[in-house]
Amino acid sequence: MKRPSSSSDGLLSPLFSSPAVEHELSDESLLRAMLDAEAALALACAKCGVVPPDAAELIQKTCQQGDFDIDEIGRAGQGAGNPVVPLVRSIVAQVPESAKPWVHYGATSQDILDTALMLMARRAAKIVLADVASAVDLVASLTVAHRGTLMVGRTLGQQAVVTTFGMKTAGWLVALDTTRARLASTMESQLAAQLGGAAGTLGVYGAAAIDVLREYAAQLGLAAPCVPWHTNRQRVLEFAAVLGELVAAAGKLALDVELLAQTEIGEVYEGGSGSHGTSSAMPHKRNPVDAVLIRSAAYRAPGLVATLFGASQHEQERAAGAWHAEWETLLELIRVTGGAMARTSQLVAAIEVDDARMRENLDITGGLVMAEQLAAVLAPTLGRSKAADAVARCCEQARSSRRHLRDVALADNELRSNLSAAQIDQALDPLGALNAIGPLIDRALAQHSAPAAAGEGSGR
Amino acid sequence: MKRPSSSSDGLLSPLFSSPAVEHELSDESLLRAMLDAEAALALACAKCGVVPPDAAELIQKTCQQGDFDIDEIGRAGQGAGNPVVPLVRSIVAQVPESAKPWVHYGATSQDILDTALMLMARRAAKIVLADVASAVDLVASLTVAHRGTLMVGRTLGQQAVVTTFGMKTAGWLVALDTTRARLASTMESQLAAQLGGAAGTLGVYGAAAIDVLREYAAQLGLAAPCVPWHTNRQRVLEFAAVLGELVAAAGKLALDVELLAQTEIGEVYEGGSGSHGTSSAMPHKRNPVDAVLIRSAAYRAPGLVATLFGASQHEQERAAGAWHAEWETLLELIRVTGGAMARTSQLVAAIEVDDARMRENLDITGGLVMAEQLAAVLAPTLGRSKAADAVARCCEQARSSRRHLRDVALADNELRSNLSAAQIDQALDPLGALNAIGPLIDRALAQHSAPAAAGEGSGR
Amino acid sequence: MKRPSSSSDGLLSPLFSSPAVEHELSDESLLRAMLDAEAALALACAKCGVVPPDAAELIQKTCQQGDFDIDEIGRAGQGAGNPVVPLVRSIVAQVPESAKPWVHYGATSQDILDTALMLMARRAAKIVLADVASAVDLVASLTVAHRGTLMVGRTLGQQAVVTTFGMKTAGWLVALDTTRARLASTMESQLAAQLGGAAGTLGVYGAAAIDVLREYAAQLGLAAPCVPWHTNRQRVLEFAAVLGELVAAAGKLALDVELLAQTEIGEVYEGGSGSHGTSSAMPHKRNPVDAVLIRSAAYRAPGLVATLFGASQHEQERAAGAWHAEWETLLELIRVTGGAMARTSQLVAAIEVDDARMRENLDITGGLVMAEQLAAVLAPTLGRSKAADAVARCCEQARSSRRHLRDVALADNELRSNLSAAQIDQALDPLGALNAIGPLIDRALAQHSAPAAAGEGSGR
Amino acid sequence: MKRPSSSSDGLLSPLFSSPAVEHELSDESLLRAMLDAEAALALACAKCGVVPPDAAELIQKTCQQGDFDIDEIGRAGQGAGNPVVPLVRSIVAQVPESAKPWVHYGATSQDILDTALMLMARRAAKIVLADVASAVDLVASLTVAHRGTLMVGRTLGQQAVVTTFGMKTAGWLVALDTTRARLASTMESQLAAQLGGAAGTLGVYGAAAIDVLREYAAQLGLAAPCVPWHTNRQRVLEFAAVLGELVAAAGKLALDVELLAQTEIGEVYEGGSGSHGTSSAMPHKRNPVDAVLIRSAAYRAPGLVATLFGASQHEQERAAGAWHAEWETLLELIRVTGGAMARTSQLVAAIEVDDARMRENLDITGGLVMAEQLAAVLAPTLGRSKAADAVARCCEQARSSRRHLRDVALADNELRSNLSAAQIDQALDPLGALNAIGPLIDRALAQHSAPAAAGEGSGR
Repeated sequence: MKRPSSSSDGLLSPLFSSPAVEHELSDESLLRAMLDAEAALALACAKCGVVPPDAAELIQKTCQQGDFDIDEIGRAGQGAGNPVVPLVRSIVAQVPESAKPWVHYGATSQDILDTALMLMARRAAKIVLADVASAVDLVASLTVAHRGTLMVGRTLGQQAVVTTFGMKTAGWLVALDTTRARLASTMESQLAAQLGGAAGTLGVYGAAAIDVLREYAAQLGLAAPCVPWHTNRQRVLEFAAVLGELVAAAGKLALDVELLAQTEIGEVYEGGSGSHGTSSAMPHKRNPVDAVLIRSAAYRAPGLVATLFGASQHEQERAAGAWHAEWETLLELIRVTGGAMARTSQLVAAIEVDDARMRENLDITGGLVMAEQLAAVLAPTLGRSKAADAVARCCEQARSSRRHLRDVALADNELRSNLSAAQIDQALDPLGALNAIGPLIDRALAQHSAPAAAGEGSGR
Repeated sequence: MKRPSSSSDGLLSPLFSSPAVEHELSDESLLRAMLDAEAALALACAKCGVVPPDAAELIQKTCQQGDFDIDEIGRAGQGAGNPVVPLVRSIVAQVPESAKPWVHYGATSQDILDTALMLMARRAAKIVLADVASAVDLVASLTVAHRGTLMVGRTLGQQAVVTTFGMKTAGWLVALDTTRARLASTMESQLAAQLGGAAGTLGVYGAAAIDVLREYAAQLGLAAPCVPWHTNRQRVLEFAAVLGELVAAAGKLALDVELLAQTEIGEVYEGGSGSHGTSSAMPHKRNPVDAVLIRSAAYRAPGLVATLFGASQHEQERAAGAWHAEWETLLELIRVTGGAMARTSQLVAAIEVDDARMRENLDITGGLVMAEQLAAVLAPTLGRSKAADAVARCCEQARSSRRHLRDVALADNELRSNLSAAQIDQALDPLGALNAIGPLIDRALAQHSAPAAAGEGSGR
Repeated sequence: MKRPSSSSDGLLSPLFSSPAVEHELSDESLLRAMLDAEAALALACAKCGVVPPDAAELIQKTCQQGDFDIDEIGRAGQGAGNPVVPLVRSIVAQVPESAKPWVHYGATSQDILDTALMLMARRAAKIVLADVASAVDLVASLTVAHRGTLMVGRTLGQQAVVTTFGMKTAGWLVALDTTRARLASTMESQLAAQLGGAAGTLGVYGAAAIDVLREYAAQLGLAAPCVPWHTNRQRVLEFAAVLGELVAAAGKLALDVELLAQTEIGEVYEGGSGSHGTSSAMPHKRNPVDAVLIRSAAYRAPGLVATLFGASQHEQERAAGAWHAEWETLLELIRVTGGAMARTSQLVAAIEVDDARMRENLDITGGLVMAEQLAAVLAPTLGRSKAADAVARCCEQARSSRRHLRDVALADNELRSNLSAAQIDQALDPLGALNAIGPLIDRALAQHSAPAAAGEGSGR
Repeated sequence: MKRPSSSSDGLLSPLFSSPAVEHELSDESLLRAMLDAEAALALACAKCGVVPPDAAELIQKTCQQGDFDIDEIGRAGQGAGNPVVPLVRSIVAQVPESAKPWVHYGATSQDILDTALMLMARRAAKIVLADVASAVDLVASLTVAHRGTLMVGRTLGQQAVVTTFGMKTAGWLVALDTTRARLASTMESQLAAQLGGAAGTLGVYGAAAIDVLREYAAQLGLAAPCVPWHTNRQRVLEFAAVLGELVAAAGKLALDVELLAQTEIGEVYEGGSGSHGTSSAMPHKRNPVDAVLIRSAAYRAPGLVATLFGASQHEQERAAGAWHAEWETLLELIRVTGGAMARTSQLVAAIEVDDARMRENLDITGGLVMAEQLAAVLAPTLGRSKAADAVARCCEQARSSRRHLRDVALADNELRSNLSAAQIDQALDPLGALNAIGPLIDRALAQHSAPAAAGEGSGR
């Protein structure tokens, strides 16, 4: 019995995370990110004339090639309450004498840890974004393919009126598309470098302070904040919220798939290779495994988002616990989001749609789901009130006598004195529902193709 | 003992809500918003040729002037699970015969209720936004006034290094400013009209569907969605998140005030008229009542945000419970946010800052909070490592002998052979810390004055 | 357009709350509870010789018959941050001179407000408990009635193996029964009086302190705490958790009902009078309205529970916000629980079970849900491995040829050389599944009838 | 740069978890627990005559000594959505032919995984319980030691009236004691074995079903449930709630420590060896590191508790996602609780109390915190109203003239005509406050020593 061989291995991680994302969230990646921050700080200071260029290069080299012991740093971090203090000690120990005074120059632990977490967030979010992009393109294709695939719409679990599978996926598409756009812009604007020194005043750098801040951020490819944000956590909240929204969009898609895959409905299945979702003991089952695991993420994200909102009031110039609560929570939220998005992409890529079953289910109620349309056709001649009454009467008759609405309608005097058999047939034809659906789907696809140009815009 | 005379009266509401906001969230306002939605629908349909103009006018008139019994509609809503069904029945009963068929034409209950909630959200959020604007301007003034008011920065509750009160409020300012901008843009883009009909297909309007949707939204001053969003709740989440962020920003400000108002610190007090925060039994107390109540909002918002995220996966074409969970939760979140923002504005308007006490507290540690600066001054001549060691030795001596660091430093041979008495005095002068603080405060104020033009932009 | 005429009226309240519970949570009831606490305090003090008996009686009389203006008290409470200060002022103003000094004697605002909230919690929880008792008895009856009503068990939305409806309801029964027991014991042990004075030291009563505390609690019918619990909120958390568990148990029941009521499954319906759940426009719908509204409570309770857990760290001798966050949150959680339990009782009372449809659905997969049982019958002669293989082969054949498993099995040489046609029929008969189910149901019913005596006990 | 060498190593884990607890939560421990469950199942079945004893022994042996590849099982679990399916496959592959059919006999994946999680919970909770026991004994000693250590009580951050440090710790004691008792009883009654088979009907075992269930639970030292609880998650909720309450109790203690350790208050410090909480750059700081990290747990637990409550409605006979969301969340909640309790024990063991500073701070307001007591002494002669007025006048005078209340009182004619100088001195002596505090502390200590015998009982 040996340990999992990486952070994305193990018994449960493969179910809930994506290896690529999880890799960016490992202790090794955190160490790397902290070292990147320390190196960038030295280089930025050098560029602004605050640290000798030679010292900065030596520091950068040690950060890149030095030997750092994760376990030891982790253990030693207990005295300080964070791993930066021992990390800095380890860098200092490894750089030549001349560079020692310039390690971590002017910074506080939170500068490095916040920046490292933002770097990790950015690196991981890029992978998430690619998974979302892949999922959303697949959903767009599905929407095009099933634009006219008739099925019944269901409200509160009850069959309601006719729709198409493409209309349903257009809803998924818009939700994922808008959230993707929000993730991309949030990454740009909210994932910012942190630099403030002991109390957020950038005290040590003197007149060069703001230049150092800008250069440091630039080195790392992160946004440069207006002022240090040590105890103003809007950035964390905004990033957390967009991850939560992403998981919500994926969770809605997965919920629909799981419900449509119920044995008694059977309109959609997860494909997937080999034994995906099958059970040797119960051969009739086709478990919607991806959907189930995406839904598990959707159950988990809100609590993680809430923790970050709950830990967002940071005391004075450094929080006594609220900040510390963010670290693992934020990483876990990214991890869960990453798992959900990778699996969403996989689910949509292999989804199987049973058009025939959709059509069959549409007729389960003996035409009653078309009642509204029949009343609409009848209205011009009979008046809307009378039309509604007449159709309601036919429906009641159909229900009680267990006959199809078409048969009842064709035999009904009031209806037949206003509509021909062909007209009744046409009214009860679900295809009539497609008129308005087409343009709606077009809007969703247009927004997908050209977010900026799409009518009311991506935000709308 | 009589009932509270309005929704914003009562024993607890005055503590937690703002009368103006609470008014927009009352049952009367919900009824008004639903009637506004029904009227707008009729007018939009008429404009698009789907409903006879006369009928639309009659419907609008009844929506504006009709007689609607809140209790009766509420009770009758139990059978349908929402109040729209009995409301529509009541409108139909009150319009002339010719208009009856056109009431609620093509819509489903969710269209009206979602739209009404968005209208309420918009109306209430406008008031919240005004309170934020007022608070943020007051914080900006405070920042200007206390730009150079020296005080100690505190991390983990411990005195750390010198800062200014204006630097602290600059942090509040940026947090409130960016969140205000986000609230404004979220109101524009995310608070959208809802229209989809029974299953989100806009089935009844035929070719006019998208025109009806656009016109309906325009009538109500809400965004027009790309497609119906009955079961894609990104809009609700995004609005909820920004409210949560707003409360977080206010909560941080309030937390700082409460901590600074502690008897032993006493740097900041809530002003306010009359008996605000005083206690006749304990005359020495000056309770930070506003801060406490704002903080209570900050404890509550995350759970409400989490509920909305948790209820964001809506089944198929209408959720069986998740949608219903949104209604009161969203209204409560707006209410709590409104209360917090009104109180924040009030707190900041009347805040009393005790500059002298700030200065006194800065000296409590006998100059130790200036140690870092002393080491910096010593570094050029002694080298950074030796400088740090020398200062650490002096600090230890000051601590153990309970003397001021200045006295120890002036008597220390190593220091004196490198620094004059005047240099030591200058190094220990907190005013030296102001160099970098000024430009940071300028950045925050510039962003406040001209969000779009301010360097890295409001998002950064 | 007039205001709702009571706190349980209005447009949304009737959907989410129970009038009887909501009545106990109104501002009037809060005022009553605070006055009860003040009266009990005076009487307890008198009994312990700390307050003159005449004064106590005068205070009690005023608390019972005095004139108190909710709006005025509420507004005046803003200066103090709670309504107790103006309430005490109002009592003092109304009692005769001799009693004035003894009003609120030795108490602090939190003593009265905490005690009042516990009283409200107790009064409301009694009603909730009665609703749970009613629901649980109805579920027990359902379990007895449907002990042998065969239906398919479903896992991950897929048909799995045979069970009975009574087995399903036995699960509901045990969940509700154990949570009911926990609510009852939590009410006894955790809903305690609060009395501590300004800083929880009972300072004013001298040697009589503990007697006053005990007598005060006894007067109110609340538990007497070991020490004042001003800033140790375990009691609130424990009560909140049990409410959350109750809503969870109800939510599970409602979720099952909603899923079973889906048009394509149709095994269970909500009954209920008149227009319950029906739609005139879509006559085929039978919306599970009660289930939907119970589920909405289940979406809301976790966020409210989380808020209380999140606000459970109270600073020093009085919290600066966390305490204030409890008040409305706790009342709302009770309200939502009350609504859910009343509706659960109503749902179960009127539930309609379609035994025939359950039986039909059991056969949808052409006998495959009985495959496991067929293999079990075959095992003794063929060995378990070979039996499993043989049955799997038949299942595959049945699936691919769309024939019933019975037909395939009867035609299969390997099976027929080991089993007679009658044996195969018996193996595929779902009735065989009842063997183990009966005793399990008996256990659940036994625990319901005699919680204390039932084998492993109610906790197990 | 290498991986952390165990699950409790790494950069962040040492801060937030206890190595002993984390060890029980590792993938290795999960594998062990699942294998324990499979072995116990075989043995229980054998004992009840359902499985051949030889086969059961072979299975047990393989479970104990077999070779299982965590990574491979984890990866293969993706097809099934849980790791049990490949684990069973691996056991089957390793047992001799004769035992193969009896592996996992009659069980479903959820039986094994739920049972394994309950086993892990039990094993980890035992360690947590020991840490709580250690912490609570230390808090009791602290309470005895500081029974009479005078200090000021603080409400809303303001000095209020006198108390003792022992009174404060008595509050911590009661909170921890009652929660410890609840954890112990919850472990016994709620951590139960899971066994139900494919749909919770124990279908395969026939008449032996309930015996198998009981024996299986007994083998594992877990409670035997009344009926399978696959989709009734009360047990998980109750366990989660008690963990949440434990963290809340620890968090309150930590919050008090952090606030008392503020530089300006300085009444309590974290001791601890070596560099605990010190900063070389800021020598005056004594960071309350343990308190900060405990508080971080208190920020995190509510969100995890909420996730479990939010995921507590499980569909039909197996949840499609809600169950899966429990696994990592429950383990994380245990982990965070374990870290918090270990650190609480450590904090209390090394806490340093500065009695002198407590006494000094008591006098900061110039005697005003004793005003209430002065009025009480004056009341018998002057009447309570006049006494209050007279003292209020003196307080106001003391405040405005910045003199000590004693000096003002001694010079006040009205007071001096009723009280001697000695009486005034006695009234202003904080020691007078100890009368009621002693008995309260005794109650808390008595309940600690003999929970069952302590007056109102541990629940009260």
